[in-house]
Amino acid sequence: MKEELKSVEKLAGKKGVSIMKDLQEIFPDLGELATKLHKEIYERNILDLKQQEIITLAVLISQGNTESAFRFHINAALHAGLSKEEILEIIFHCAPYTGFPKAINAVYAAYDIFVENGLSS
Amino acid sequence: MKEELKSVEKLAGKKGVSIMKDLQEIFPDLGELATKLHKEIYERNILDLKQQEIITLAVLISQGNTESAFRFHINAALHAGLSKEEILEIIFHCAPYTGFPKAINAVYAAYDIFVENGLSS
Amino acid sequence: MKEELKSVEKLAGKKGVSIMKDLQEIFPDLGELATKLHKEIYERNILDLKQQEIITLAVLISQGNTESAFRFHINAALHAGLSKEEILEIIFHCAPYTGFPKAINAVYAAYDIFVENGLSS
Amino acid sequence: MKEELKSVEKLAGKKGVSIMKDLQEIFPDLGELATKLHKEIYERNILDLKQQEIITLAVLISQGNTESAFRFHINAALHAGLSKEEILEIIFHCAPYTGFPKAINAVYAAYDIFVENGLSS
Amino acid sequence: MKEELKSVEKLAGKKGVSIMKDLQEIFPDLGELATKLHKEIYERNILDLKQQEIITLAVLISQGNTESAFRFHINAALHAGLSKEEILEIIFHCAPYTGFPKAINAVYAAYDIFVENGLSS
Amino acid sequence: MKEELKSVEKLAGKKGVSIMKDLQEIFPDLGELATKLHKEIYERNILDLKQQEIITLAVLISQGNTESAFRFHINAALHAGLSKEEILEIIFHCAPYTGFPKAINAVYAAYDIFVENGLSS
Repeated sequence: MKEELKSVEKLAGKKGVSIMKDLQEIFPDLGELATKLHKEIYERNILDLKQQEIITLAVLISQGNTESAFRFHINAALHAGLSKEEILEIIFHCAPYTGFPKAINAVYAAYDIFVENGLSS
Repeated sequence: MKEELKSVEKLAGKKGVSIMKDLQEIFPDLGELATKLHKEIYERNILDLKQQEIITLAVLISQGNTESAFRFHINAALHAGLSKEEILEIIFHCAPYTGFPKAINAVYAAYDIFVENGLSS
Repeated sequence: MKEELKSVEKLAGKKGVSIMKDLQEIFPDLGELATKLHKEIYERNILDLKQQEIITLAVLISQGNTESAFRFHINAALHAGLSKEEILEIIFHCAPYTGFPKAINAVYAAYDIFVENGLSS
Repeated sequence: MKEELKSVEKLAGKKGVSIMKDLQEIFPDLGELATKLHKEIYERNILDLKQQEIITLAVLISQGNTESAFRFHINAALHAGLSKEEILEIIFHCAPYTGFPKAINAVYAAYDIFVENGLSS
Repeated sequence: MKEELKSVEKLAGKKGVSIMKDLQEIFPDLGELATKLHKEIYERNILDLKQQEIITLAVLISQGNTESAFRFHINAALHAGLSKEEILEIIFHCAPYTGFPKAINAVYAAYDIFVENGLSS
Repeated sequence: MKEELKSVEKLAGKKGVSIMKDLQEIFPDLGELATKLHKEIYERNILDLKQQEIITLAVLISQGNTESAFRFHINAALHAGLSKEEILEIIFHCAPYTGFPKAINAVYAAYDIFVENGLSS
């Protein structure tokens, strides 16, 4: 495995690596730049990994972005030690700021990813 | 002081109360609903106050929203114990997700609020 | 049926209740807060129900949000007495303000919901 | 006065004409296309003028757009017979859908325009 | 074929006409206004057709809009002579400005359309 | 002058360097990452510099972003050889896709920057 993908695995586990590899196959240049930025961003040490994933998820919920990057970062958030309950709470907290419709979309998208990870109640 | 404004003061200090009072003067119904939601949202206990303010700031940066609510929540973030460096780091972390132009706008807006709080270097 | 779901049924009919129940099953806290806000918002009496649904649909079209909340509020708009033609006209009127691509997405999403309601041509 | 500006005056009064003329001076082609579209959109008769302005304001609040077009359409809304209270209520109704920060920005921007029109309490 | 659809065919080929006809079937008024605007916009001669499609794609990527209009304009871009590599490069260039998640969504959506056009490597 | 600022000067002239230096003074880490990305993005050779600035401006217009990055990239667009008329035409072309209100805001912001550059008629 390439050096940079190791930093992706550290961040988001095997699922994260698989998502990143899909991108690198279709458009290697973008995959490479994304991987390089990941390394640069997540290896800083002012915020911890949980805080970083909280920020990323909040931005994605706010953008209404529930596709590839959301799947990647829900996996990364679980990998960083955030629980299913904490991830739902991030969405809950976003609702009055992003509006409820975006929060509701995020709940459904997150739920599907929890099921994939064997985490549905 | 009304009961609910006390919860605003607990969250965002005297500056927060002053911003909320401005809103309540112009449009009391919206100010009241906002205050009521604040109370409901911030008194939950799954995420801590720092994490909650991190989420709120990330959403505002993502929306490109650098006005009244941004000022309120930079003050609330400082009040919750986040340092100037940590707030800048939240903006830094947002950049690859929101795009750099929104992050740069947030830096300038945050800087002005730091200066108001006597926090510029 | 719980008291609050009755106010949802009054607003958006049986389909609306079913959409809200789905949410409450996956994430009860958010479903409850959404229901509570619905009650608070739609029982005011400065704007009538048609005007309220016009606003809600315009916001969703503008956000490019054509999923769960859009389905809920198309049903609510029909329930409030707006016709299929009036709903399409709302989308038409949005186009120069939201841009045409978002309006076109809304047309396709609305069309599917009209078909579900037996309202296609 | 040109034919098309008359339709702008009918829609948004003298203030509306003045805002449109400013645009036409700086960039005539865009001003002309905007005026032509206004005519085409607002002279349809499925929704009435109040409903049309409600849609336009909801879109602008949702976009966080509180500048030239917002000023134009607050004036147009007043001209169509919507009261200051109804305009504030449109903003109130948007809040749970757009998020509160955008609604609060809209309140402040609307307030300034009300003052210009001698409508502050 | 109607006169206006000819200008759509010139812009986006047979696939473009087919997408526009779908819209005109569901909601003729919006289809007609969109076609009329297309004619007005694309027949100006300050920017060339490639530059125009670059602008349109950049806006759609920025909106996170990867549906009907994106399909239409990827086809139009290919029709204007932009290569698959250049279209991917447009997405690449957007990434630091729109944020990477929107760029990644655009890559996947574009890829599907390339495959439909027999353009996957 | 640092090596990287030279690449900024090549891209956006002395005004661009001055805008970038402002950012680097307030928040050096973000300024440095932005500069590094600029270098990486603009030195690719699939699209030419004019096409790259067209993309960047279209994204900013679509975001409603008319502040620091807009000023930087209007200057960069002029530096790349785009004329005032072509820049206005980019905004014109965006209008039906972004909605007219964002295009109108962009016209006013661009106009101010043209005046600063001695380019108003």
